[in-house]
Amino acid sequence: MKDDPLSMTFAALADPTRRAILSRLAEGEATVNELAEPHAMSLPSVSRHLKVLERAGLVVKGKSAQWRPCRLDAAPLQAADAWMAPYRDFFEQRFARLEQQLANERKEEKP
Amino acid sequence: MKDDPLSMTFAALADPTRRAILSRLAEGEATVNELAEPHAMSLPSVSRHLKVLERAGLVVKGKSAQWRPCRLDAAPLQAADAWMAPYRDFFEQRFARLEQQLANERKEEKP
Repeated sequence: MKDDPLSMTFAALADPTRRAILSRLAEGEATVNELAEPHAMSLPSVSRHLKVLERAGLVVKGKSAQWRPCRLDAAPLQAADAWMAPYRDFFEQRFARLEQQLANERKEEKP
Repeated sequence: MKDDPLSMTFAALADPTRRAILSRLAEGEATVNELAEPHAMSLPSVSRHLKVLERAGLVVKGKSAQWRPCRLDAAPLQAADAWMAPYRDFFEQRFARLEQQLANERKEEKP
């Protein structure tokens, strides 16, 4: 696995459980136990996913020894979003072409 | 590696060479040879990266037997971009807080 920051961010996002953890943390801080609950996953398994997210800088663990709640840090997502930006033109053009095609088909259908 | 479409897209993006290939293809179609050149990479190595991109649906190979030029299909990026959208609020808020903080510091510096 490549260890440049952007590659680590994308690799961290390449798993549905990790994306679900981020989406839970977007609502607010949560403990490892709270994060494990909806996935019916073992704590070690959730901890492994959290380590990948922490290494990518997407999750930060609190310092309170007892609870150590996890919180989202969206900064690495901003870099990923910025990488994506120039490609937006491509799929927007694609969508525009599709709309045009549908409009033409509708015209042809009319007598 | 997870094989749901979104995970495959993010996994394909988790490599600087593959991102460079996509950015080259955003400028227009290219053959495998043309893609290999700027990376001083062996053809088999570039082909391996292309296979990951093809599996993720990001690259489509032309049918012309001799050239088989590769082209970008940005549709999977649109899904990745859509996943990212709700997080934009987070880093935009973060940026707004930073701006506020800098403005406050500037005020304090003034006599």
